[in-house]
Amino acid sequence: MSSGPFSDIRVVVYGVGAMGALATRLLVDKGAKIVGAVGRSSSKVGRDLGEVAGLGKRLGVSIESDADEVLTRGADIAVVCVGSYLSSMHKHFETCLKNGVNVVTIEEETVFPWTTASAHAEALDALAKANGVTLAASGAQDVFWLNLVTTLLGASHKIDKVIGHSRWNVDDYGPEVANHLLIGRSKEDFDQIVEVSGWPEFVARQTLEALVARLGLKVASIASDVTAVTASAQIHCRSLKEEVPPGHVIGTIDRTVVTTREGLQFEFAMEGRLYRDGETDYNFWKVQGEPSLQLSCEDANYRFTTCSTLVNRIPDVIAAAPGLCSLDMLNSPRYRHH
Amino acid sequence: MSSGPFSDIRVVVYGVGAMGALATRLLVDKGAKIVGAVGRSSSKVGRDLGEVAGLGKRLGVSIESDADEVLTRGADIAVVCVGSYLSSMHKHFETCLKNGVNVVTIEEETVFPWTTASAHAEALDALAKANGVTLAASGAQDVFWLNLVTTLLGASHKIDKVIGHSRWNVDDYGPEVANHLLIGRSKEDFDQIVEVSGWPEFVARQTLEALVARLGLKVASIASDVTAVTASAQIHCRSLKEEVPPGHVIGTIDRTVVTTREGLQFEFAMEGRLYRDGETDYNFWKVQGEPSLQLSCEDANYRFTTCSTLVNRIPDVIAAAPGLCSLDMLNSPRYRHH
Repeated sequence: MSSGPFSDIRVVVYGVGAMGALATRLLVDKGAKIVGAVGRSSSKVGRDLGEVAGLGKRLGVSIESDADEVLTRGADIAVVCVGSYLSSMHKHFETCLKNGVNVVTIEEETVFPWTTASAHAEALDALAKANGVTLAASGAQDVFWLNLVTTLLGASHKIDKVIGHSRWNVDDYGPEVANHLLIGRSKEDFDQIVEVSGWPEFVARQTLEALVARLGLKVASIASDVTAVTASAQIHCRSLKEEVPPGHVIGTIDRTVVTTREGLQFEFAMEGRLYRDGETDYNFWKVQGEPSLQLSCEDANYRFTTCSTLVNRIPDVIAAAPGLCSLDMLNSPRYRHH
Repeated sequence: MSSGPFSDIRVVVYGVGAMGALATRLLVDKGAKIVGAVGRSSSKVGRDLGEVAGLGKRLGVSIESDADEVLTRGADIAVVCVGSYLSSMHKHFETCLKNGVNVVTIEEETVFPWTTASAHAEALDALAKANGVTLAASGAQDVFWLNLVTTLLGASHKIDKVIGHSRWNVDDYGPEVANHLLIGRSKEDFDQIVEVSGWPEFVARQTLEALVARLGLKVASIASDVTAVTASAQIHCRSLKEEVPPGHVIGTIDRTVVTTREGLQFEFAMEGRLYRDGETDYNFWKVQGEPSLQLSCEDANYRFTTCSTLVNRIPDVIAAAPGLCSLDMLNSPRYRHH
């Protein structure tokens, strides 16, 4: 009946992997005008976005490999689902911003990039401002690890410590993520690789920093560590198409602890691992203070809610002031009825 | 170390019952400047607010019975904890507003008064605008039944139905509330009284209407009903100092169902009753749609969080545009560090 809240928004789908395909379906449901699609795989370039996204219908939009070419034709926003770190995503965001196209992305570092990727963040902030557009990241963490928590804290008189624990299914995100988390390796391999190469801070830290910034508190110290979770019994890894034997890595726990200058502590443990039957994407937060508070979500469906939250954020990002807009700078995301 | 976020805010404590006393303690912790106190009981008028509020120290603020007198001396905001319905609170709010003093209150109808008390709401809205100040209500529902839910829905692609269930302890709010809920009456008495006098819509409806308005949806129909909860075994009522026998009323379930013109349904059951040992203030919300979502808080401590949320809202209410500001018009409440 209605043409939807997105009918005047011209979108470029930038990245047509599993997440870009899901975002495409949600954008079509919302009534967005998809005006272009960018992909790199030779098996997708030249084909119709609707077919590649598995919609069972053509959208009249061909997937192209030359992002600059697509973006020069103009759009209100690019929905960028490509990679997880700002260093590798910089050039993609740059292409959008210099063409005057806003960006919303699932790239996790941009949630709060000011300390882990400050040079990239400052350059992109300046570029976005110079072109009058906004770059922002969103995803499930926007709702479940940031805004549900800051909203709960709206009932706090005094916070001593905030403790979060969330769990997501590695198999929901394909082989690249499974390999990144060293799934299937021996515990010894894992420890040696982390010892030699370090471990990039991934989602948990950025979300916690955005949370502290939103509360108006100042970081005194940040500590992060990673622990391997190993199999107690053999388990199948769908994305790597292999069996992981007992004792080998089935996931990791990324833990970040922020202490603020005001003396409050924030701790967040983010566990990504292979699931056994019946396990779900868990989200639990506990507030020690006056009063004690607690919040839990039994199944946050992080893969899906990363895309749905991203799409719901589009009008906020278009409306935001130009620049790189880290998530502490936006109000809570909201449902967009279609 | 810091003087706190409230040190420049001059507050009048309006109403010095149990909730006003708790609000006083929180305001003192936050560093607010309490410049006046209004009470009506002859056992409190003339005494120091700090003593009456049980702080164990004097605040140098006498409780006065003449509200107009107190408010004429000027303040930034009045924290009003007196009654639950706009019809009886109208004159109190009027006194504040005509003296150019903002109001934040736990009075539940003002959360969304536009349909259940529209004449009062419109008159107070006009008065607030004429005096350049804001009238707003807050309390636990602001966090637990409104903003946690709208934030969760920020992850929804499509909502079919939202179902909430919350439980609060009648004994936390004194004899007036227990009598209002007909605690201790027989089931027959209860049904007859509701049949004859009706049942004022209380918190659940207003919160649900604020939620629907915040989502930008339009109400098609609203239905409310009340059910008595009866004792399966004898239970003690602290606030009435009496035993409630089996079969008699220990609480009520207020249920409101809103259907929107867009076809979405919102149902909220708010249960207020006497607790048995180990029971807590429960908060549970379920979203049917794509995806299915769920959120729960095991102990929302509604009595305390009503005061703490109210106090956290003070800077928002002072900063809001003049007029009656129903809760759909404000962003999520936030923690205020002291």
